[in-house]
Amino acid sequence: MKIIVDGMGGDNAPQEIVKGAIMAAHELIQLDDDIIVSIIGPEQRIISCLKQNGWDCSSPAEKSEGRCRFSNIEVIDATEVITNDEAPAMAVRKKKDSTIVKAMTLLKSGEADAFISAGSTGALLAGGLVTLGRIKGIRRPAIAAWFPKMHNGGTTLLLDCGANVEAKPEFIFQNGIMGAMYVEGVKGIKRPEVRLLNIGAESSKGDELHKEAHRLLAGSNINFGGNIEGRDVAVTDCEVVITDGFSGNIFLKGSEGVALAIMSQIKSKLREGLRAKMGALLAYNKLSELKEMFDYSDSGGAPILGLKGAVLKAHGNSKAVEIYYAVMKAIPYVRNDVTQMIADAVTQNADLFRTADEAE
Amino acid sequence: MKIIVDGMGGDNAPQEIVKGAIMAAHELIQLDDDIIVSIIGPEQRIISCLKQNGWDCSSPAEKSEGRCRFSNIEVIDATEVITNDEAPAMAVRKKKDSTIVKAMTLLKSGEADAFISAGSTGALLAGGLVTLGRIKGIRRPAIAAWFPKMHNGGTTLLLDCGANVEAKPEFIFQNGIMGAMYVEGVKGIKRPEVRLLNIGAESSKGDELHKEAHRLLAGSNINFGGNIEGRDVAVTDCEVVITDGFSGNIFLKGSEGVALAIMSQIKSKLREGLRAKMGALLAYNKLSELKEMFDYSDSGGAPILGLKGAVLKAHGNSKAVEIYYAVMKAIPYVRNDVTQMIADAVTQNADLFRTADEAE
Repeated sequence: MKIIVDGMGGDNAPQEIVKGAIMAAHELIQLDDDIIVSIIGPEQRIISCLKQNGWDCSSPAEKSEGRCRFSNIEVIDATEVITNDEAPAMAVRKKKDSTIVKAMTLLKSGEADAFISAGSTGALLAGGLVTLGRIKGIRRPAIAAWFPKMHNGGTTLLLDCGANVEAKPEFIFQNGIMGAMYVEGVKGIKRPEVRLLNIGAESSKGDELHKEAHRLLAGSNINFGGNIEGRDVAVTDCEVVITDGFSGNIFLKGSEGVALAIMSQIKSKLREGLRAKMGALLAYNKLSELKEMFDYSDSGGAPILGLKGAVLKAHGNSKAVEIYYAVMKAIPYVRNDVTQMIADAVTQNADLFRTADEAE
Repeated sequence: MKIIVDGMGGDNAPQEIVKGAIMAAHELIQLDDDIIVSIIGPEQRIISCLKQNGWDCSSPAEKSEGRCRFSNIEVIDATEVITNDEAPAMAVRKKKDSTIVKAMTLLKSGEADAFISAGSTGALLAGGLVTLGRIKGIRRPAIAAWFPKMHNGGTTLLLDCGANVEAKPEFIFQNGIMGAMYVEGVKGIKRPEVRLLNIGAESSKGDELHKEAHRLLAGSNINFGGNIEGRDVAVTDCEVVITDGFSGNIFLKGSEGVALAIMSQIKSKLREGLRAKMGALLAYNKLSELKEMFDYSDSGGAPILGLKGAVLKAHGNSKAVEIYYAVMKAIPYVRNDVTQMIADAVTQNADLFRTADEAE
């Protein structure tokens, strides 16, 4: 198995990306796993970064045009980078030697199995659509993020978090299929419960878009638990919450903002006065546990589901530890062939899609 | 000025509603303000509830058919109640002697100035539309809620929180006008900054609905500060955040759920072990300040803006203190005639509405 990491994606590239890849490579050696971590980017820059971080690059185990491998880390040369400021579709068409386009091409040809990038979401989506393509039957890819379960420290998969802002009922329905297959594949939970984010619990609630999505979900072979209100997501026991990309993004970022604001207030309040400071000191361990519990970042990359290959988007401000998590998260995605699981589930529900197509 | 409170609305009616009305009436006497608090509901039941809570009902200051006043609390007889289970439009048409319909009729005739209810939101909206009617030029009423500013203890007005789930650009634009006028009227802030909840900061971000709303807002005489992402609302310095009713509801309830989950986790974590308990004891005052800061409930009623009268929705689970706050919040709403301010602002922006109408 080969997992490519975008050496030039995100605010802290290449330094933190390379560090994260090294963390993952170390762990994989210890696990005696023959997985290769490839870093894609300007070859000399990546190699010098590897050296700076103590990775032995003195004698490559393998070397060919634009590739070299040192133990279980490979460097794949790519000379261009797509930035956040560029129009994604245009950039993807023009920059054939960019990290994103080149990695997608390697995924497509089967030379690599997964791609992780902290770079431009738009370019990842555009590159995914143009170079990799969609799974047959899937109408729109969706970004899936892990949302913290605040009552028990677990996570709920939330999608779409913003890949696709002009939604149709069928897209939301397909998010349900993709989310269920992903959770089944990476967490091993059979027939995970899927619920639809809506403004009320009853099936009659919501706008036409969500009412129709509810109808499609209820008639499918998914384990559909009905609507869920925004208030209940943080403490739900269901495994997957699906939404359209607009409200999914608003919901995810909104909750994240509130959680960050509260944690920051706790921190500053507990510095006001001696009593509070002493109290905070005594309760330090427990407060740290809380911080971890509400941390949206340590769950690693968010998969872009629906593409013909495993692509994961890491936060733009990812540090080494997030890149490490994303690599580890990509392994069961590839090993259990979630992409094929989604393709099979789409085939099983093909009749419903046709009905939805005709209804449009 | 006369403010009517729905004696039969909400989970804790009539007991907590009457208590809240008494709290407000006491304060108004102390302020030497000649505002009357009217409680609408089955006369004998409300009077016996007033007596139970120590209000002197021995000799009415005024008495007529279906009305009696004891000091600055009036009781208005209404024999019917609309429940949450009823279809709102139907209930409003059939139950002419319900608290909601009767109160709206009194608002319309000018016999009362504001109406507060913790009852069915749907019935309040339907009653408002059918009996009171919309302000000329306003297309859809919107529910506005106070969202806590988590960095400084202030509040931001958020609308629409779910009155209207099938949005058009013009409705969102009008939310901006209504929100700005409300904040100017009740907080006295001239030309408050209004921002649009969207999935990105740039004007090119979002779906067609929000892009067009952005265009209308940018061309109006509102103090429009552009888009705001979900992540930034909890710590924004702007006064008004506007959205469509679907994502507004998802955002508000989602953040509320996360805040509640975090506060409940803090509570339980700080009970684990002696050190944590002692720490919590020492930091008790500061932790209580936090709890207040993130409390979504104590800001009182959420105005339903766009109706020809001041109508406020209180939480279904409101206790006396929330009803008290809602009464106090209604006073500047009436005194500064926010309804007229909205009507004037609509006239000023009438050209833009016409353009939007034609575009549909």
